[in-house]
Amino acid sequence: MPVLNLRSDSADPDTLPEQMAAIGRRARQAARRMALASAQTKDIALQGIAERLRADRDTVLRENDRDVAAAREAGQSEALIDRLRLDDARLAGIAAAVEKVGALADPVGRQLAAIERPNGLLIERVAVPLGVIGVIFESRPNVTADAGALCLKAGNAAILRAGSDSFRTSQAIARAMGQGLEAAGLPADAVQIVPTRDRAAVGMMLAGLDGCVDVIVPRGGRSLVERVQAEAKVPVFAHLDGINHVYVDRAADLDMARTVLLNSKMRRVSVCGAAETLLIDRACADTHLKPLVAALIEAGCAVRGDAATRAADPRVTEATEADWSTEYLDAVIAVRVVAGLDEAIAHIESYGSHHTDAIITEDEEAARRFLAEVDSAIVAHNASTQFADGGEFGFGAEIGIATGRMHARGPVGVEQLTTFKYRVHGRGQTRP
Amino acid sequence: MPVLNLRSDSADPDTLPEQMAAIGRRARQAARRMALASAQTKDIALQGIAERLRADRDTVLRENDRDVAAAREAGQSEALIDRLRLDDARLAGIAAAVEKVGALADPVGRQLAAIERPNGLLIERVAVPLGVIGVIFESRPNVTADAGALCLKAGNAAILRAGSDSFRTSQAIARAMGQGLEAAGLPADAVQIVPTRDRAAVGMMLAGLDGCVDVIVPRGGRSLVERVQAEAKVPVFAHLDGINHVYVDRAADLDMARTVLLNSKMRRVSVCGAAETLLIDRACADTHLKPLVAALIEAGCAVRGDAATRAADPRVTEATEADWSTEYLDAVIAVRVVAGLDEAIAHIESYGSHHTDAIITEDEEAARRFLAEVDSAIVAHNASTQFADGGEFGFGAEIGIATGRMHARGPVGVEQLTTFKYRVHGRGQTRP
Repeated sequence: MPVLNLRSDSADPDTLPEQMAAIGRRARQAARRMALASAQTKDIALQGIAERLRADRDTVLRENDRDVAAAREAGQSEALIDRLRLDDARLAGIAAAVEKVGALADPVGRQLAAIERPNGLLIERVAVPLGVIGVIFESRPNVTADAGALCLKAGNAAILRAGSDSFRTSQAIARAMGQGLEAAGLPADAVQIVPTRDRAAVGMMLAGLDGCVDVIVPRGGRSLVERVQAEAKVPVFAHLDGINHVYVDRAADLDMARTVLLNSKMRRVSVCGAAETLLIDRACADTHLKPLVAALIEAGCAVRGDAATRAADPRVTEATEADWSTEYLDAVIAVRVVAGLDEAIAHIESYGSHHTDAIITEDEEAARRFLAEVDSAIVAHNASTQFADGGEFGFGAEIGIATGRMHARGPVGVEQLTTFKYRVHGRGQTRP
Repeated sequence: MPVLNLRSDSADPDTLPEQMAAIGRRARQAARRMALASAQTKDIALQGIAERLRADRDTVLRENDRDVAAAREAGQSEALIDRLRLDDARLAGIAAAVEKVGALADPVGRQLAAIERPNGLLIERVAVPLGVIGVIFESRPNVTADAGALCLKAGNAAILRAGSDSFRTSQAIARAMGQGLEAAGLPADAVQIVPTRDRAAVGMMLAGLDGCVDVIVPRGGRSLVERVQAEAKVPVFAHLDGINHVYVDRAADLDMARTVLLNSKMRRVSVCGAAETLLIDRACADTHLKPLVAALIEAGCAVRGDAATRAADPRVTEATEADWSTEYLDAVIAVRVVAGLDEAIAHIESYGSHHTDAIITEDEEAARRFLAEVDSAIVAHNASTQFADGGEFGFGAEIGIATGRMHARGPVGVEQLTTFKYRVHGRGQTRP
C-alpha cells in the first residue's frame, strides 16, 4: 500500500523550523552528490523517474482524485480544478517531459572560457551546478516533475513547495522521483517536497534555510511572485509581469505587422510572452492603424486606445493611464500612436516590465536602435513576442522566464541552472 | 576655488531619504545613457578622468591632507592613516590605473551565444551593462577611481559610498571623474558619491534605493562585508573570508610543495588569496611534513598544528578547533595531517570559505578529483593560491573577489559587471 508511505500534512507547527532546516541540510548534502554525478547517471535517473511515474499511475491518479475532490469541496474554480486534474494523457505527458529533459545535453562541465597566461597557467571557467533550488508553485502538479527534472539535469537538488490544492498529487510524483533517483544510485533527497500545507514553510524557504537554498524559483500567479520577490533573502529567478509591446514602425510592412501582431497578442492570450500594448508610429498611422485595429477586433480582441486610435475605429474604447501598465492576460490590447522610435522606446521603458518587446520594421537602423535601447530580457525584430519561451529558444525546456538582471535573464533552461568555477592548472607557478 | 564646490557633509538627516532616492534616480538615468555609449566614448572619458585627476592634483592632495589630519585627531591607527594617505606617486598610480581600465577590451556588446532556429530565427545572447552598481568602501580613497572606472568601462553607473575617513578625498576624486565624463559627453551622474557620512545612507543603498541599485559591491573589512551581506536586499558581489587551503597530496613533489606553499602563505599575508591552512596527506607526512613546517617557520610564519604536526617540530603550537576556520591575514598558518584526498576535501568543505584552494600533486587523477569536488570559486593544481586576483587571471583589473554562487564568482572584472539580453532577429516569423 504505497499510499500509506506518503507523508501526510501532519507537520507540527512547533517543530516546522527544525523540519525545514533538516530538509535544507539534506538538500545540501544531496546537491554535493548530484554535482559529481556523471551525465549518464543523471540520464538514467531521469529515464527511471519517467518509468516510475508510468508504473505509479494508479497511485498518482488516486491522490490526484483526492486533491480534485478536496478542491471541489472547497469551492475552487473550474479553471483551477482543470489545472489541477491529471488523467492518463496528462500523466503520460509529464513522464515524456521528464524523458525529454534527460535527453538534453549535460550543462555541467562545459568549458565556458579558457585563459592561457604568460606564466604558463591555464585557467578554465567551467560550468558547475547552482546547488539547491527552491521551487514554489501553485496548483499545477506537473511542475513537480518538470521543475524537478530540470534541476536534476543541471546537477542540483530541489526543494519543492506545492500549493495546497496539488499537495497530495505532488507528493506522489515526488515520491516516484525519489525512487527513480535511488534506482540510479543518486540520493532521493535531491528532490524533496515540503511535507506541509503550512504557509510558514514558504517564509522559511525564502529566508534560505540557513544558507541551504541558493535560489528560489516561484511558479505561479502574480501574488505568489510578488510575495517571493518582496520577502526572499536569496536570489529569485522570476518575472512579475509580461507587459510586452509590439511597436509598428513607419517602415513596417503592413502584412507582416498584422501577422506578427495577431500572433503576439492572440496565439495564446494567457502566456507571459503575449503582447499587451501596440504602439504605432504616427508616420504610418494613416495606412497601418485602421487595418491593424480592425484585424485585432475581428480576431476577437477588445481594443482600448488613445484618441488617435479611437478616431480610427469607433469600436475602440478609451484607454486610461492604467492600461499602459496592465498585463491583461486576456483578449484585450492597449493601443497608442507615438511620434516615432524615440517615443516608442520611452513608452516601453516607462511602462514595460522588461520581459519581451518587438519592433516591426524594414528599416535596419531603426531595428538596431530598438534592440539596443529597449532594456528588456528579450528584444525582437520582425518576430512574435510569443517566441519568449525556452523551448522556442532551443533550450529544450524552461523552468520559467526571468526579468531580473542577474545570472539568469529571459528563459531559464538547464544552462541557466548552472554557475561556474575557475580551475587553475599549474606546474608549480608562484606569484611574483 | 574649486574646493568650495565640493559637496560638504551638510546632508540633513530628515531629508536624507529624499536625497538618496534622487541619487538613485539620477544614477538610473545616467546608466541608460552609459549603456548606449560607444567603446570609444567610454575610453575618451576614462582617459579624460585620468588627465583630470592629474590636473586636480593640488585639490585632491589638499582634501586628502584634511582627511589625514582629521583621522589623526580622531586617534586612528597608523595603518589606517597609511591606507588613507595620498601623495604624488599614489595619485599618479590612481590615474594610471584608470587609463589601464580604459585600455581594456569593451565588455559590452560581445556576442555570448548565437542560436539559429529551424524556423529561421537568429537568437543572439549579447552582453549589456548590469545597470547601477553601489560600491561601499572604507578608508582607501583610490577605490573611488578604481571601482568607478571599472563600472564605467562596463557601461554602468556607480553610486559610491566612501568611508568617513576618506570622505573629502573621495569627493575630490569623484568630482574629477564627473568632469572627465562630461568632457566626453557622458553624464557626470554616472559616478555619484554619497554626500554624507551618515551611516543611514548605507542602509538605504542596501535596500536598493527603490529599485535603482542593481548590485552592491562592498570593499573593505570583514565587518563591512558582513553587514552588507546580512542587510542587502539586492545582490552582493563579495567574499566574507578567504580561508584558503593548500593540500599537499601523497604524490606531491616536495620542492614544488615548498615553493608553492611559501608563496601561497607568505608572499603577502594580508590578501584574501593567502593560504590559511595547510593539509598534508598522512602518506607523505614522514617525508614532507617536517621540511614544510621548517620552511614556514624559517620564513617567519607561526605554525599551529595538530598532534602529528607538533610531534614533527617542537616549535609548532597547538591548533584549536577555531584555527581551522580562522582567516589570519597574518604570518600564521594552521597545519593538519589528513588521511588522504577524501579527508582533505571534507575538511575544506567543512571549514573553508569557498574562495581559493590548491592541491599539490603529481597524480593527475587526484588533481582531477580535487578540482571537481572542492566547491570553491577558484581551485588550483600545482599553483599558488595567491593567483586569486583579476589581474593574474588576465582581467586587467578587478573590483573584488566574489564567493557567492550567482552571476559573478571569483575575480570580478569588467566582464562580470555586465549581464546579457537576447536579441531575436526575424523575417516576420510567428509561433505556431
